[in-house]
Amino acid sequence: MDQFMQAAIEEAQSGMHSGGIPIGSVLVYENEIIGRGHNQRVQKGSTILHGEMDALENAGRQPAAVYKKCVLYTTLSPCPMCSGAILLYGIPKVVIGENLTYMGAETLLRENGVELTIVQDSRCQALMRRFIQENPALWQEDIGE
Amino acid sequence: MDQFMQAAIEEAQSGMHSGGIPIGSVLVYENEIIGRGHNQRVQKGSTILHGEMDALENAGRQPAAVYKKCVLYTTLSPCPMCSGAILLYGIPKVVIGENLTYMGAETLLRENGVELTIVQDSRCQALMRRFIQENPALWQEDIGE
Repeated sequence: MDQFMQAAIEEAQSGMHSGGIPIGSVLVYENEIIGRGHNQRVQKGSTILHGEMDALENAGRQPAAVYKKCVLYTTLSPCPMCSGAILLYGIPKVVIGENLTYMGAETLLRENGVELTIVQDSRCQALMRRFIQENPALWQEDIGE
Repeated sequence: MDQFMQAAIEEAQSGMHSGGIPIGSVLVYENEIIGRGHNQRVQKGSTILHGEMDALENAGRQPAAVYKKCVLYTTLSPCPMCSGAILLYGIPKVVIGENLTYMGAETLLRENGVELTIVQDSRCQALMRRFIQENPALWQEDIGE
Protein backbone atom coordinates (compact mmCIF):
# COMPACT_ATOMS: atom_id res chain seq x y z
CA MET A 1 0.00 0.00 0.00
CA ASP A 2 1.26 3.40 -1.05
CA GLN A 3 2.17 5.42 2.06
CA PHE A 4 0.24 8.45 0.76
CA MET A 5 -3.01 6.57 0.13
CA GLN A 6 -2.49 5.10 3.59
CA ALA A 7 -2.29 8.66 4.99
CA ALA A 8 -5.47 9.64 3.11
CA ILE A 9 -7.26 6.60 4.58
CA GLU A 10 -6.08 7.58 8.05
CA GLU A 11 -7.60 11.03 7.44
CA ALA A 12 -10.87 9.38 6.39
CA GLN A 13 -10.84 7.23 9.53
CA SER A 14 -10.08 10.26 11.66
CA GLY A 15 -13.11 11.99 10.11
CA MET A 16 -15.28 8.97 10.83
CA HIS A 17 -14.11 8.82 14.44
CA SER A 18 -15.11 12.45 14.97
CA GLY A 19 -18.61 11.70 13.66
CA GLY A 20 -18.03 12.94 10.12
CA ILE A 21 -18.05 11.76 6.54
CA PRO A 22 -15.15 9.32 6.01
CA ILE A 23 -13.32 10.87 3.09
CA GLY A 24 -9.70 11.94 3.43
CA SER A 25 -7.01 13.43 1.22
CA VAL A 26 -3.36 14.42 1.24
CA LEU A 27 -1.50 16.77 -1.07
CA VAL A 28 2.01 15.55 -1.88
CA TYR A 29 4.88 17.66 -3.23
CA GLU A 30 8.23 16.10 -4.03
CA ASN A 31 7.37 13.00 -2.05
CA GLU A 32 6.29 14.88 1.08
CA ILE A 33 2.82 15.61 2.41
CA ILE A 34 2.28 19.39 2.43
CA GLY A 35 -1.43 19.32 3.29
CA ARG A 36 -3.82 16.76 4.73
CA GLY A 37 -7.49 16.87 5.59
CA HIS A 38 -10.88 15.24 5.67
CA ASN A 39 -14.48 16.12 5.02
CA GLN A 40 -15.68 18.70 7.59
CA ARG A 41 -19.41 18.93 6.85
CA VAL A 42 -20.41 17.59 10.25
CA GLN A 43 -17.49 18.78 12.37
CA LYS A 44 -17.36 22.38 11.08
CA GLY A 45 -20.78 22.64 9.44
CA SER A 46 -18.89 23.27 6.22
CA THR A 47 -20.40 22.94 2.77
CA ILE A 48 -17.10 23.38 0.94
CA LEU A 49 -14.58 21.46 3.06
CA HIS A 50 -14.66 18.14 1.28
CA GLY A 51 -11.57 16.03 1.98
CA GLU A 52 -9.70 17.37 -1.03
CA MET A 53 -10.60 21.00 -0.24
CA ASP A 54 -9.57 20.58 3.41
CA ALA A 55 -6.17 19.22 2.34
CA LEU A 56 -5.71 22.11 -0.12
CA GLU A 57 -6.72 24.63 2.52
CA ASN A 58 -4.42 23.11 5.13
CA ALA A 59 -1.51 23.21 2.66
CA GLY A 60 -1.78 26.99 2.79
CA ARG A 61 -0.86 29.45 0.06
CA GLN A 62 1.58 27.78 -2.31
CA PRO A 63 3.21 29.10 -5.47
CA ALA A 64 1.69 27.91 -8.73
CA ALA A 65 4.91 26.02 -9.48
CA VAL A 66 4.35 23.85 -6.40
CA TYR A 67 0.79 22.81 -7.28
CA LYS A 68 1.93 21.92 -10.78
CA LYS A 69 4.26 19.28 -9.33
CA CYS A 70 1.82 17.91 -6.75
CA VAL A 71 -0.05 14.64 -6.55
CA LEU A 72 -3.39 14.65 -4.74
CA TYR A 73 -4.35 11.41 -2.99
CA THR A 74 -8.00 11.07 -2.10
CA THR A 75 -10.01 8.13 -0.80
CA LEU A 76 -13.01 8.83 -3.08
CA SER A 77 -13.49 10.01 -6.66
CA PRO A 78 -13.45 13.86 -6.59
CA CYS A 79 -16.80 15.64 -6.96
CA PRO A 80 -17.21 18.52 -9.46
CA MET A 81 -16.16 21.14 -6.86
CA CYS A 82 -12.98 19.33 -5.86
CA SER A 83 -12.24 18.53 -9.50
CA GLY A 84 -12.60 22.22 -10.31
CA ALA A 85 -10.11 23.05 -7.56
CA ILE A 86 -7.68 20.51 -9.05
CA LEU A 87 -8.07 22.23 -12.43
CA LEU A 88 -7.75 25.74 -10.96
CA TYR A 89 -4.40 24.93 -9.42
CA GLY A 90 -3.20 22.72 -12.24
CA ILE A 91 -2.55 19.66 -10.08
CA PRO A 92 -1.40 17.15 -12.72
CA LYS A 93 -1.96 13.80 -10.97
CA VAL A 94 -4.70 12.44 -8.73
CA VAL A 95 -4.67 9.02 -7.06
CA ILE A 96 -8.22 7.93 -6.21
CA GLY A 97 -8.98 5.33 -3.55
CA GLU A 98 -12.19 4.15 -5.19
CA ASN A 99 -14.95 5.28 -7.55
CA LEU A 100 -17.54 2.54 -7.05
CA THR A 101 -19.62 4.13 -4.28
CA TYR A 102 -19.47 7.56 -6.00
CA MET A 103 -18.22 8.58 -9.43
CA GLY A 104 -16.97 12.15 -9.48
CA ALA A 105 -15.98 14.39 -12.37
CA GLU A 106 -13.28 12.04 -13.68
CA THR A 107 -14.18 12.68 -17.32
CA LEU A 108 -13.73 16.43 -16.85
CA LEU A 109 -10.36 15.86 -15.20
CA ARG A 110 -9.13 13.54 -17.94
CA GLU A 111 -10.39 15.88 -20.68
CA ASN A 112 -8.22 18.56 -19.10
CA GLY A 113 -5.11 16.41 -19.03
CA VAL A 114 -5.13 15.32 -15.38
CA GLU A 115 -3.63 11.85 -14.92
CA LEU A 116 -5.86 9.66 -12.75
CA THR A 117 -4.95 6.43 -11.01
CA ILE A 118 -7.85 4.45 -9.56
CA VAL A 119 -6.74 2.12 -6.78
CA GLN A 120 -10.13 0.50 -5.99
CA ASP A 121 -8.97 -0.01 -2.42
CA SER A 122 -11.29 -2.27 -0.44
CA ARG A 123 -10.85 -0.25 2.76
CA CYS A 124 -11.95 2.98 1.05
CA GLN A 125 -14.99 1.16 -0.34
CA ALA A 126 -15.86 -0.39 3.02
CA LEU A 127 -15.67 3.01 4.78
CA MET A 128 -18.07 4.57 2.29
CA ARG A 129 -20.46 1.61 2.02
CA ARG A 130 -20.96 1.54 5.77
CA PHE A 131 -21.25 5.31 6.02
CA ILE A 132 -23.81 5.60 3.20
CA GLN A 133 -25.85 2.72 4.62
CA GLU A 134 -25.96 4.33 8.07
CA ASN A 135 -26.30 7.98 6.96
CA PRO A 136 -28.03 8.14 3.58
CA ALA A 137 -29.43 11.65 4.05
CA LEU A 138 -26.10 13.10 5.18
CA TRP A 139 -24.39 11.56 2.20
CA GLN A 140 -26.96 12.92 -0.24
CA GLU A 141 -26.53 16.37 1.31
CA ASP A 142 -22.77 16.17 0.78
CA ILE A 143 -23.14 15.51 -2.94
CA GLY A 144 -25.97 18.00 -3.48
CA GLU A 145 -28.72 15.45 -3.99
CA MET B 1 -28.82 48.21 -10.66
CA ASP B 2 -30.04 44.89 -9.30
CA GLN B 3 -29.99 44.98 -5.49
CA PHE B 4 -28.23 41.60 -5.34
CA MET B 5 -25.39 42.56 -7.69
CA GLN B 6 -25.14 45.72 -5.59
CA ALA B 7 -24.70 43.52 -2.49
CA ALA B 8 -22.04 41.45 -4.26
CA ILE B 9 -20.17 44.64 -5.19
CA GLU B 10 -20.36 45.80 -1.58
CA GLU B 11 -18.78 42.49 -0.56
CA ALA B 12 -16.01 43.03 -3.13
CA GLN B 13 -15.43 46.55 -1.78
CA SER B 14 -15.39 45.24 1.78
CA GLY B 15 -12.73 42.72 0.72
CA MET B 16 -10.69 45.47 -0.89
CA HIS B 17 -10.91 47.67 2.19
CA SER B 18 -9.55 44.85 4.36
CA GLY B 19 -6.56 44.47 2.02
CA GLY B 20 -7.91 41.57 0.01
CA ILE B 21 -8.87 40.60 -3.50
CA PRO B 22 -11.98 42.57 -4.53
CA ILE B 23 -14.37 39.81 -5.56
CA GLY B 24 -17.70 39.39 -3.80
CA SER B 25 -20.73 37.13 -4.06
CA VAL B 26 -24.17 36.61 -2.62
CA LEU B 27 -26.38 33.52 -2.70
CA VAL B 28 -30.05 34.35 -3.13
CA TYR B 29 -33.00 32.08 -2.34
CA GLU B 30 -36.55 33.18 -3.00
CA ASN B 31 -35.48 36.79 -3.32
CA GLU B 32 -33.49 36.86 -0.06
CA ILE B 33 -29.76 36.71 0.53
CA ILE B 34 -28.96 33.54 2.48
CA GLY B 35 -25.15 33.77 2.20
CA ARG B 36 -22.68 36.51 1.35
CA GLY B 37 -18.91 36.62 1.18
CA HIS B 38 -15.74 37.77 -0.50
CA ASN B 39 -12.36 36.40 -1.44
CA GLN B 40 -10.38 35.57 1.72
CA ARG B 41 -6.94 34.68 0.32
CA VAL B 42 -5.23 37.58 2.06
CA GLN B 43 -7.42 37.96 5.14
CA LYS B 44 -7.60 34.26 6.11
CA GLY B 45 -4.69 32.89 4.08
CA SER B 46 -7.27 30.76 2.32
CA THR B 47 -6.69 29.03 -0.99
CA ILE B 48 -10.31 27.93 -1.38
CA LEU B 49 -12.36 30.88 -0.12
CA HIS B 50 -12.98 32.66 -3.37
CA GLY B 51 -15.94 35.04 -3.18
CA GLU B 52 -18.41 32.43 -4.39
CA MET B 53 -17.06 29.76 -2.01
CA ASP B 54 -17.17 32.16 0.94
CA ALA B 55 -20.82 32.98 0.19
CA LEU B 56 -21.68 29.27 -0.08
CA GLU B 57 -19.84 28.53 3.16
CA ASN B 58 -21.53 31.40 4.98
CA ALA B 59 -24.95 30.18 3.80
CA GLY B 60 -24.36 27.08 5.90
CA ARG B 61 -25.75 23.61 5.28
CA GLN B 62 -28.83 23.88 3.08
CA PRO B 63 -31.09 21.17 1.70
CA ALA B 64 -30.53 20.27 -1.96
CA ALA B 65 -33.96 21.68 -2.77
CA VAL B 66 -32.81 25.14 -1.64
CA TYR B 67 -29.68 25.26 -3.80
CA LYS B 68 -31.72 24.18 -6.79
CA LYS B 69 -33.81 27.35 -6.48
CA CYS B 70 -30.92 29.71 -5.79
CA VAL B 71 -29.31 32.41 -7.87
CA LEU B 72 -25.62 33.14 -7.26
CA TYR B 73 -24.52 36.73 -7.88
CA THR B 74 -20.80 37.23 -8.26
CA THR B 75 -18.75 40.23 -9.33
CA LEU B 76 -16.37 38.17 -11.53
CA SER B 77 -16.72 35.20 -13.86
CA PRO B 78 -16.44 32.03 -11.69
CA CYS B 79 -13.17 30.08 -11.86
CA PRO B 80 -13.18 26.28 -12.37
CA MET B 81 -13.33 25.61 -8.61
CA CYS B 82 -16.31 27.90 -8.00
CA SER B 83 -17.99 26.63 -11.17
CA GLY B 84 -17.56 23.09 -9.88
CA ALA B 85 -19.22 24.08 -6.60
CA ILE B 86 -22.12 25.58 -8.58
CA LEU B 87 -22.47 22.26 -10.44
CA LEU B 88 -22.13 20.16 -7.27
CA TYR B 89 -25.04 21.93 -5.63
CA GLY B 90 -27.07 22.33 -8.80
CA ILE B 91 -27.40 26.10 -8.58
CA PRO B 92 -29.35 26.84 -11.77
CA LYS B 93 -28.63 30.56 -12.35
CA VAL B 94 -25.53 32.71 -11.99
CA VAL B 95 -25.41 36.47 -12.50
CA ILE B 96 -21.85 37.57 -13.32
CA GLY B 97 -20.65 41.14 -12.81
CA GLU B 98 -18.05 40.96 -15.56
CA ASN B 99 -15.89 38.53 -17.52
CA LEU B 100 -13.47 40.89 -19.27
CA THR B 101 -10.65 40.93 -16.70
CA TYR B 102 -10.96 37.13 -16.17
CA MET B 103 -12.95 34.51 -18.04
CA GLY B 104 -13.91 31.60 -15.82
CA ALA B 105 -15.43 28.23 -16.66
CA GLU B 106 -18.52 29.68 -18.31
CA THR B 107 -18.52 27.09 -21.10
CA LEU B 108 -18.54 24.26 -18.55
CA LEU B 109 -21.43 25.89 -16.70
CA ARG B 110 -23.48 26.42 -19.85
CA GLU B 111 -22.77 22.88 -21.07
CA ASN B 112 -24.26 21.67 -17.81
CA GLY B 113 -27.41 23.74 -18.15
CA VAL B 114 -26.55 26.63 -15.84
CA GLU B 115 -28.15 29.89 -16.98
CA LEU B 116 -25.63 32.73 -17.01
CA THR B 117 -26.33 36.45 -17.15
CA ILE B 118 -23.31 38.66 -17.80
CA VAL B 119 -23.87 42.22 -16.59
CA GLN B 120 -20.51 43.75 -17.67
CA ASP B 121 -20.78 46.21 -14.82
CA SER B 122 -18.22 49.00 -15.05
CA ARG B 123 -17.69 49.11 -11.28
CA CYS B 124 -16.82 45.40 -11.17
CA GLN B 125 -14.36 45.91 -14.02
CA ALA B 126 -12.80 48.98 -12.40
CA LEU B 127 -12.28 47.13 -9.09
CA MET B 128 -10.47 44.27 -10.82
CA ARG B 129 -8.46 46.41 -13.25
CA ARG B 130 -7.04 48.48 -10.42
CA PHE B 131 -6.41 45.44 -8.23
CA ILE B 132 -4.62 43.47 -10.96
CA GLN B 133 -2.51 46.47 -11.91
CA GLU B 134 -1.41 47.03 -8.32
CA ASN B 135 -1.08 43.35 -7.30
CA PRO B 136 -0.26 41.24 -10.33
CA ALA B 137 1.49 38.46 -8.38
CA LEU B 138 -1.35 38.13 -5.85
CA TRP B 139 -3.87 37.92 -8.66
CA GLN B 140 -1.88 35.26 -10.49
CA GLU B 141 -1.66 33.24 -7.28
CA ASP B 142 -5.43 33.40 -6.87
CA ILE B 143 -6.05 31.90 -10.29
CA GLY B 144 -3.29 29.31 -10.05
CA GLU B 145 -0.93 30.95 -12.55
